[in-house]
Amino acid sequence: MNSNDTTAIHISEPKAHTKGKAAAAAAPAVVSVTTKASQHPQAGWKRGVAIFDFILRLCAIGAALAATITMGTTDQTLPFFTQFFQFQASYDDLPAFTFFVIANAIASGYLFLSLPFSIVSIVRPNAVGPRLLLLIFDIVMVALTTAAAAAAAAIVYLAHNGNSSANWFAICQQFTDFCQRVSGAVVGSFIAAAIFILLVVLSAFALRKH
Amino acid sequence: MNSNDTTAIHISEPKAHTKGKAAAAAAPAVVSVTTKASQHPQAGWKRGVAIFDFILRLCAIGAALAATITMGTTDQTLPFFTQFFQFQASYDDLPAFTFFVIANAIASGYLFLSLPFSIVSIVRPNAVGPRLLLLIFDIVMVALTTAAAAAAAAIVYLAHNGNSSANWFAICQQFTDFCQRVSGAVVGSFIAAAIFILLVVLSAFALRKH
Repeated sequence: MNSNDTTAIHISEPKAHTKGKAAAAAAPAVVSVTTKASQHPQAGWKRGVAIFDFILRLCAIGAALAATITMGTTDQTLPFFTQFFQFQASYDDLPAFTFFVIANAIASGYLFLSLPFSIVSIVRPNAVGPRLLLLIFDIVMVALTTAAAAAAAAIVYLAHNGNSSANWFAICQQFTDFCQRVSGAVVGSFIAAAIFILLVVLSAFALRKH
Repeated sequence: MNSNDTTAIHISEPKAHTKGKAAAAAAPAVVSVTTKASQHPQAGWKRGVAIFDFILRLCAIGAALAATITMGTTDQTLPFFTQFFQFQASYDDLPAFTFFVIANAIASGYLFLSLPFSIVSIVRPNAVGPRLLLLIFDIVMVALTTAAAAAAAAIVYLAHNGNSSANWFAICQQFTDFCQRVSGAVVGSFIAAAIFILLVVLSAFALRKH
């Protein structure tokens, strides 16, 4: 505790120096001496977090993009039809699946755009701005991908099991291929949501004061 | 503000005295000089954030509890029946609604348990531990309440509109009261999710370094 107290005082000293403009030339030497011991291991740790953040974003791109493409290209037409049933299933028949495709496409696009900010965090581990910006958007993406995955999961569950109370019949006996692909897409979106949660927690840890 | 600052410094001084045994006796004077200008207005700002955090939690309790109770007590039996249809609707007929009730009950319980930690943040605005703990659990609750609301919303949409592709019929013509109450509960859960997102953003701002 004693050594911490003294470094804290040493760090605050150069700040006071730089505010006074004339004496600022001597300050950097003091900074380098005091920060070599206390600041840089922390910066290294934060850089590690930023690199992990970048890798997680690449994984999330994979998950969100796979979910989007899987759901978006799913289209099954059965080789028979009657006059009562329309035996063709695609994602845009169900609004929940359409929302799923749009939400995951937005998440994928956001992840691509967030990569430069993640790189800035690697280069400048102590920068607060990019981390805070990414954290806020990441939380929104947690909500978006979770909502998409949960809505699609509710419909997929219904398609698999049906519901006797509401008199909704299971359609997965007919549309086996459709149901399997949609279920896979839902899993992909839940994985993306979990990675976003992890990204927010990492950013919060990197942002906290010591 | 100035009188507040000096009292805060007087409180921190004896702490340093008791911890630092021999050489720390001279340090508190230096600390008080440097912090008088920079640290304590920030503490006031952080206390304001903590109080706002507490109020938001109370609002979220209201929203989550209202959603839970509305959905949990919804039970409509129609005054006629046939041998094909079961004209009784309650939340446990549909797994998505059961999940909704459980998730919102968990969110309400968590919010009650989080109030003491929020109070700790008000009393000690610079404490990092409680804020970080609340932030991590808040993110999980964002995902939980959003998932519950989205899954229930997908089913409610289906109940209102039906789906011709899957041959699922709208049931809200019969169960008008049921559908109205369920829709209200979904709105309550989305409000709770939005408040959780706001809480995470607030915590992140309060946690960041300056």
